[in-house]
Amino acid sequence: MSFKEKYQRLRARTIAICASLAPEDYVVQPVVDVSPPKWHLGHTTWFFETFVLTPHQQDYAVFDPDYNYVFNSYYETVGARVVRTDRGNLSRPTVEEVFRYRAYVDAAMIAFLSDETAIDASLRAIIELGLNHEEQHQELLITDIKYILGNNPLLPAYACTYEKPEVPDIVEQAWLDIPEGVYEIGAKGDQFCFDNELNRHKVYAQAFAIQSGPVTNEQFIAFIEDGGYQDFRHWHSDGWAWVQQHQVAAPMYWQQIEGAWYHYTPEGLTLVPLKQPVCHISYYEAWAFAAWAGCRLPTEAEWELASDRFPWGARWEWTESAYLPYPGFVKAEGAIGEYNGKFMVNQMVLRGASEATTPGHSRNTYRNFFQPGLRWQFTGLRLAR
Amino acid sequence: MSFKEKYQRLRARTIAICASLAPEDYVVQPVVDVSPPKWHLGHTTWFFETFVLTPHQQDYAVFDPDYNYVFNSYYETVGARVVRTDRGNLSRPTVEEVFRYRAYVDAAMIAFLSDETAIDASLRAIIELGLNHEEQHQELLITDIKYILGNNPLLPAYACTYEKPEVPDIVEQAWLDIPEGVYEIGAKGDQFCFDNELNRHKVYAQAFAIQSGPVTNEQFIAFIEDGGYQDFRHWHSDGWAWVQQHQVAAPMYWQQIEGAWYHYTPEGLTLVPLKQPVCHISYYEAWAFAAWAGCRLPTEAEWELASDRFPWGARWEWTESAYLPYPGFVKAEGAIGEYNGKFMVNQMVLRGASEATTPGHSRNTYRNFFQPGLRWQFTGLRLAR
Amino acid sequence: MSFKEKYQRLRARTIAICASLAPEDYVVQPVVDVSPPKWHLGHTTWFFETFVLTPHQQDYAVFDPDYNYVFNSYYETVGARVVRTDRGNLSRPTVEEVFRYRAYVDAAMIAFLSDETAIDASLRAIIELGLNHEEQHQELLITDIKYILGNNPLLPAYACTYEKPEVPDIVEQAWLDIPEGVYEIGAKGDQFCFDNELNRHKVYAQAFAIQSGPVTNEQFIAFIEDGGYQDFRHWHSDGWAWVQQHQVAAPMYWQQIEGAWYHYTPEGLTLVPLKQPVCHISYYEAWAFAAWAGCRLPTEAEWELASDRFPWGARWEWTESAYLPYPGFVKAEGAIGEYNGKFMVNQMVLRGASEATTPGHSRNTYRNFFQPGLRWQFTGLRLAR
Amino acid sequence: MSFKEKYQRLRARTIAICASLAPEDYVVQPVVDVSPPKWHLGHTTWFFETFVLTPHQQDYAVFDPDYNYVFNSYYETVGARVVRTDRGNLSRPTVEEVFRYRAYVDAAMIAFLSDETAIDASLRAIIELGLNHEEQHQELLITDIKYILGNNPLLPAYACTYEKPEVPDIVEQAWLDIPEGVYEIGAKGDQFCFDNELNRHKVYAQAFAIQSGPVTNEQFIAFIEDGGYQDFRHWHSDGWAWVQQHQVAAPMYWQQIEGAWYHYTPEGLTLVPLKQPVCHISYYEAWAFAAWAGCRLPTEAEWELASDRFPWGARWEWTESAYLPYPGFVKAEGAIGEYNGKFMVNQMVLRGASEATTPGHSRNTYRNFFQPGLRWQFTGLRLAR
Repeated sequence: MSFKEKYQRLRARTIAICASLAPEDYVVQPVVDVSPPKWHLGHTTWFFETFVLTPHQQDYAVFDPDYNYVFNSYYETVGARVVRTDRGNLSRPTVEEVFRYRAYVDAAMIAFLSDETAIDASLRAIIELGLNHEEQHQELLITDIKYILGNNPLLPAYACTYEKPEVPDIVEQAWLDIPEGVYEIGAKGDQFCFDNELNRHKVYAQAFAIQSGPVTNEQFIAFIEDGGYQDFRHWHSDGWAWVQQHQVAAPMYWQQIEGAWYHYTPEGLTLVPLKQPVCHISYYEAWAFAAWAGCRLPTEAEWELASDRFPWGARWEWTESAYLPYPGFVKAEGAIGEYNGKFMVNQMVLRGASEATTPGHSRNTYRNFFQPGLRWQFTGLRLAR
Repeated sequence: MSFKEKYQRLRARTIAICASLAPEDYVVQPVVDVSPPKWHLGHTTWFFETFVLTPHQQDYAVFDPDYNYVFNSYYETVGARVVRTDRGNLSRPTVEEVFRYRAYVDAAMIAFLSDETAIDASLRAIIELGLNHEEQHQELLITDIKYILGNNPLLPAYACTYEKPEVPDIVEQAWLDIPEGVYEIGAKGDQFCFDNELNRHKVYAQAFAIQSGPVTNEQFIAFIEDGGYQDFRHWHSDGWAWVQQHQVAAPMYWQQIEGAWYHYTPEGLTLVPLKQPVCHISYYEAWAFAAWAGCRLPTEAEWELASDRFPWGARWEWTESAYLPYPGFVKAEGAIGEYNGKFMVNQMVLRGASEATTPGHSRNTYRNFFQPGLRWQFTGLRLAR
Repeated sequence: MSFKEKYQRLRARTIAICASLAPEDYVVQPVVDVSPPKWHLGHTTWFFETFVLTPHQQDYAVFDPDYNYVFNSYYETVGARVVRTDRGNLSRPTVEEVFRYRAYVDAAMIAFLSDETAIDASLRAIIELGLNHEEQHQELLITDIKYILGNNPLLPAYACTYEKPEVPDIVEQAWLDIPEGVYEIGAKGDQFCFDNELNRHKVYAQAFAIQSGPVTNEQFIAFIEDGGYQDFRHWHSDGWAWVQQHQVAAPMYWQQIEGAWYHYTPEGLTLVPLKQPVCHISYYEAWAFAAWAGCRLPTEAEWELASDRFPWGARWEWTESAYLPYPGFVKAEGAIGEYNGKFMVNQMVLRGASEATTPGHSRNTYRNFFQPGLRWQFTGLRLAR
Repeated sequence: MSFKEKYQRLRARTIAICASLAPEDYVVQPVVDVSPPKWHLGHTTWFFETFVLTPHQQDYAVFDPDYNYVFNSYYETVGARVVRTDRGNLSRPTVEEVFRYRAYVDAAMIAFLSDETAIDASLRAIIELGLNHEEQHQELLITDIKYILGNNPLLPAYACTYEKPEVPDIVEQAWLDIPEGVYEIGAKGDQFCFDNELNRHKVYAQAFAIQSGPVTNEQFIAFIEDGGYQDFRHWHSDGWAWVQQHQVAAPMYWQQIEGAWYHYTPEGLTLVPLKQPVCHISYYEAWAFAAWAGCRLPTEAEWELASDRFPWGARWEWTESAYLPYPGFVKAEGAIGEYNGKFMVNQMVLRGASEATTPGHSRNTYRNFFQPGLRWQFTGLRLAR
């Protein structure tokens, strides 16, 4: 598929994800980690304008110079940015204006991409990064929309307007044994990957076992009913403080009504399906569950080297690994270099992908990362021992 | 004018105030004191539904029972309410749904009011309160819209779609001398007033002088240029802490560009007009200005008993009086009783009215009140000594 | 009594108040409003050194120039001060050093005061202010020591090493009727008073009734048992938020053990004596109690003009008056002027005195003031209607 | 050396560390991470009382049952504990009482240890843990005392009353090359170690180079003078936020006076010695320095496997490794199990030891750990690449 085609399909899918929103839904930011949908729409567009069109398309006129201030994200190199906690206070630019911005940049990008031969390798890399960047924001759009509507007291249902994979029920679990030895992990670098997947390198793994499927809602309910949230012995010290502070007693979006567990979904409040993998849990909860079960979480290396032995992709799976640079990791120059490297502290690695991940975006070397208390992504766990 | 006519005109004016807003502007809540415009639209409607239609209109069907949760304000008597800081996170109900809610309740109210003879005195009082309540929210709509757009980095201009009084320039000031003696203040109760204006009672005033006009921008700039914001001796201890914490160096909406003072208005950023009364200052700033000028603020009694000697109504004027009950003040029974009484601590009284006050809503016994650090209302001051 | 004698007696009483403390007790500051005892000892000494000895005693050598930084309080005019919340982190100067500081200044002061005829009127005023200032800190020492030990999990008993008045039981209450009319309140200025008691001026009082005695523990328990702390209707909006935030369910130092109410005292935990006046309540609680009882708090003017009709002095009595300047109030020049004037916002007036007030320090024009949520002073209330 | 002798020497050294303190110095807690010295004295004593004497010494009478509440630390298994932020508010028990507590427990312990043959292996392990636990608190005493006095505005000098190693100047640096391959790290378990050092296991190391000596003050000053604290590109995102929030511009205890760098030491404020290893820096600063220098921090595995090639022990050295369990790590049963395991998230590993570490307490498998923003320990760094 040509870049142009890929660009067009991807940009259309972003719009499709938002198809059932009212203008009001595009604006709010209930918590700091969630961004307003219109910010995602503008920010991904700003990326192509700033890193492709402005430096490389002769005579390109920026749509609105003030938008750099509004839609810039963490790229301190490119000028002042809107503080993240302020994003939800911006009613302007309106959704319609943001759509006009997208159309304007899309027209310029499609013209720009029509002669692919004129694009050199380093620019190709930036465009590919831009496409992968927008795929990441597609997943964030899906999770942020769910958060915005799932925290509205009216608990509105909404249409799911994008294709997404079926999540099969987990009907049986098996322990897969992996022998000790030297293994290789990390991306080979022969196709697109993020900088944090490099370099491919050798690791020594001890013998271990890992489960063939993720932990289910049924298993997690057993933890709840056994008093798992009330017994400090299963928790990290920070995890226990997190439980107390936020009064956590179940995964996000869950509520118990007359003894039965319900959760919020695009269909509104529905019964928690027992055989589906548990979802919307923090690292702290994943770790506490594993401790309660007499097991542990796999490290990211264990997960990766065993990953061709089991199906994955329904839930981002918390690992026992902190997010740190691989041997030989080098930060890129300039704003692009801010992408992944500067977050390599205070975060835990998640592996796999989720039902909200853009199809084709995943690979078994992918390193996702979040602070251990976050759970608005489609996060779950798989046991190791 | 009949109740029905009054009701229709008033409700239409509320809509007119919002006429130049985009749907997105109705949603956000940049700070806790500001409410989203759609909340004002819903809340004032909910008042008529809850206190007039539901108890008094036979067979009235509530538009949506969940709205009590969303649009209830401080009336703890009437059930759970949305915490104020959460209002800005609610994308639903949408603006369109809120307008439908208004239309639904308006139709029922107009039918209800068509036979005014059937309405007894106590119900008349509640309806009159509802009308005055909506007038108060009209002013809040005006100030909140200004705040929402005036804190957007794009500083958008917007059309002023409601009639408002001209604010005349202050071209000369005079000291008006008032002799000491026993005076009467407070509402007589022979026409509508809020409960906090009662009872009319005698006060003893010392001889004092009060200025014929409010302090102007020009005078306030002299205070700024004399280092007024940097000299603790002019400030209350709490005021000085407020200046430090918020890094205050000018009235709200002001910024200095190449030596000249600009302020945000519906026309966007414009030069501060020197002869107009200063606006958007806190009690702390009003008090510091007065101290710097070797004067003081008038008490609310002084203001009221002198008020027929000077023009007023351009700015809410901070007084030296804390908001406390008048002799003989009695809280009404039930939810209505929560209206004014429970705020009688930690607030300062403002007298007069402002360019944003609904025409006809003001009188010289009116007691407005806010915490001393707030300044998004059209607030100014008048000197006494 | 000569100044010298007064000085010596007073300074000795300050030491006596601390007689049963361990060095460790002088150091801690459990909450921002409480100061470490050694800070009180140093600060009162610093007052005489800074305002009397340094400017007026030839060749006086300051004990330690760094002490100005440590023991200065709110006098921004006299240089940088230790932020109040840091006072509890200072282990040095040690208690012994502070006592040496006191001895050093006392020796100089006693020499200075030995020839009283050489002291002019304005300096006399400052010395008198210093003496009254130390009397105020004697009361604070008593309340702060109680707080420090009463919030220690060991709840230690300690000897009361200073003379204090008996607090008689309240055995009967009567309503005293006061007719309406013009009255005078405020200090006449013919003997020592604080600047905030001036000027004496006329007020108009409506007819009212006030109780002959303060509210008792027995009455307050009736409020508790009637669910007073759980019913928002009795509370100010801010008071209700205060109850929720601090989970308040009884006066400070109270705890219920097997159905009986105990409170912390110098004797340790003892049964609450039913006929004694209630103590350690905030303005919010005083106001809520009065509302629950169908009464109200008196204003400070009402309290003062009726005060020769009832005994007072066991409890500081919250009034319905915010702390505001009297007509004609003028702030003194320089650091002394910071004494009272800059606190005239966000505080409520208390009248009378308490069992912790230095004998001779009280008068019926005295205006004490605290934020409405504070209750570590010996505070109570008296009903009016 | 017998247990008894070891116990006696160790306990005496703890007292020696405090020899130059005034009683007041034992009480304060300027920040949450620092504990009052008397708390350390009580807590280490409580360990022996709770885990050795109470369960194993027949007829042992607890010194004071309330002390469990005061001196318990993170052991939630053993009952309610004093919240860490409250420790600095406790004037009682006094220092003298704490010393009496130590003497009481010491007498019982010495009697208990006099017949070592009666002590079985599992109890031996607990006693050894208690001794190592006290050694850890000896280092904390040294760092906490420095913090308490070094944050006092008087910056008092104090005698260093315990033996401590000389820290040699760093006069030359060399890069040591380590070849890639499979190595073993972790404790062998044949002598005392903490649970977090187990199990010994194989790791695969890439080829790397590490410096023979830690970074010096001179090198760090070059980073400061090059604007290192002002350039976000050297910092983690969280590190940059930390710099902004705390306004950090130099290591802890440093201040610049007329162009020269001084730091607080037991001798008071002295010139920063250029050839000494830099001290009192956070992980964020260590990482930013390494990034600025074009290098990186070593991982803890790299540090350990190279550690017999260079001298170490002057500074705790921040590594690029998050604190995570080793393969096969098992948490002990009961309160002892809370020791290390529950902190294995949100912390970074430090390797080596410091001038404040108790002689004999260090080994090259030791895993120290702190949150990345802390720097009151004697922390520095060594470069790798």
